[in-house]
Amino acid sequence: MPDQPVFVLVRPQMGENIGAAARAMWNFGLDRMRMVDPRDGWPNPRAVALASGAGRLLDHAGIFETTAAAIGDCDHVYATTARPRGLTKPVVTPERAMEEARGLIGQGRRVAVLFGPERAGLENDDIARANAIISVPVNPEFFSLNLAQCVLLTAYEWRRQTTEIVAERMEMAGAEPATALEVEKLAEHYEARLDAAGFFFPETKAPGMKLTLRNLWSRMPLTRADVQVFHGMLRQLTRGRGPRP
Amino acid sequence: MPDQPVFVLVRPQMGENIGAAARAMWNFGLDRMRMVDPRDGWPNPRAVALASGAGRLLDHAGIFETTAAAIGDCDHVYATTARPRGLTKPVVTPERAMEEARGLIGQGRRVAVLFGPERAGLENDDIARANAIISVPVNPEFFSLNLAQCVLLTAYEWRRQTTEIVAERMEMAGAEPATALEVEKLAEHYEARLDAAGFFFPETKAPGMKLTLRNLWSRMPLTRADVQVFHGMLRQLTRGRGPRP
Repeated sequence: MPDQPVFVLVRPQMGENIGAAARAMWNFGLDRMRMVDPRDGWPNPRAVALASGAGRLLDHAGIFETTAAAIGDCDHVYATTARPRGLTKPVVTPERAMEEARGLIGQGRRVAVLFGPERAGLENDDIARANAIISVPVNPEFFSLNLAQCVLLTAYEWRRQTTEIVAERMEMAGAEPATALEVEKLAEHYEARLDAAGFFFPETKAPGMKLTLRNLWSRMPLTRADVQVFHGMLRQLTRGRGPRP
Repeated sequence: MPDQPVFVLVRPQMGENIGAAARAMWNFGLDRMRMVDPRDGWPNPRAVALASGAGRLLDHAGIFETTAAAIGDCDHVYATTARPRGLTKPVVTPERAMEEARGLIGQGRRVAVLFGPERAGLENDDIARANAIISVPVNPEFFSLNLAQCVLLTAYEWRRQTTEIVAERMEMAGAEPATALEVEKLAEHYEARLDAAGFFFPETKAPGMKLTLRNLWSRMPLTRADVQVFHGMLRQLTRGRGPRP
């Protein structure tokens, strides 16, 4: 059973675009490609050259004479189009389509997504074979997605819908976060040196100023190394001045 | 106040890629572009040629000598990178970044997103100026997004986060959905003709078969035109046969 949708390039024209589509797919972990009647025949050396690291997709791509043959073993088919085509058919975003595809594939069903030729897109004959249309929600004033970009956005949504992705993490570059005690010691160091320098003036405002400073240190995402840098800066700046705390 | 993030191309090389980046942005309604020290100078006729319908973005693009100057008026900066860079910094997905950007811009803040040169990406000097890193969650085995594709995915996420998008609609092509009464009449028409043709046999199974058929008609998303087509087919198929219901 396939665990991912099949992407079908219908009558693709330029080999370069076939290679770029393969790369777009493999960026997001998809590797099942089919083609219907590629204009310049198959294999196509330009496609292979442009696929670079994703050449394996082309080696295993199924080549078919008709759209019907290419989707013969699939039971849910999406057609990607830029504009309404005068066919009565559900129209979904790539996001919704890939969410549905995840569910369908989870039930063991076989899902295909059709992408049309570069210049004119899919013909109505192809679209009529699809269960639904995928339409990328672009700026109503401007549409200029090329074949590889349509493939890219659909593949991106597949991965977004199916992979546990950490939305935010801290790249620590080997650094450890500072402990609360280290931050406390740092705050004390600054407070003492600033006090000696007459920073907390007038005295009535000193408690508020100290609180503000404590809060500032606490809200910085400091590493242990950062803390050492701040200590070092302060030591250097106050060398030979005032009483040592 | 800007109501969208500024996209900053840092030391872009090929004019073609600058044009393609402009198109990628405008597909998703973004039109504020800045550039830092484009390799081939500015204006660049190749960029203009490739931007086609998005040429306006290039006409209004700000050109700066340094990254610092290009983001001088911004107060939250993202840097896009493919790989970890050994800098301690939050790393977010495009989705999370554009969700944050929506919130920040809603508070009147100015957000910029840095995109690096085609070949090598941003330098650590540029990245150190950013508040956070945007990293597209690609296949860990394969990364091959070009400049315009990085711009495209980020712009796509901006639009997804900020535009009310209908995830699913029915393209009706002027057709109206059939009413329940019309579907009922259609079911009756078929039932009567099938009955006359001896379809419901043996008689003990007839109620179950009729129920199955009723259910089938009801779950089809029929338009009024579809109902007429089904009536017409049945009339044609049974012309001259059996008693007229």
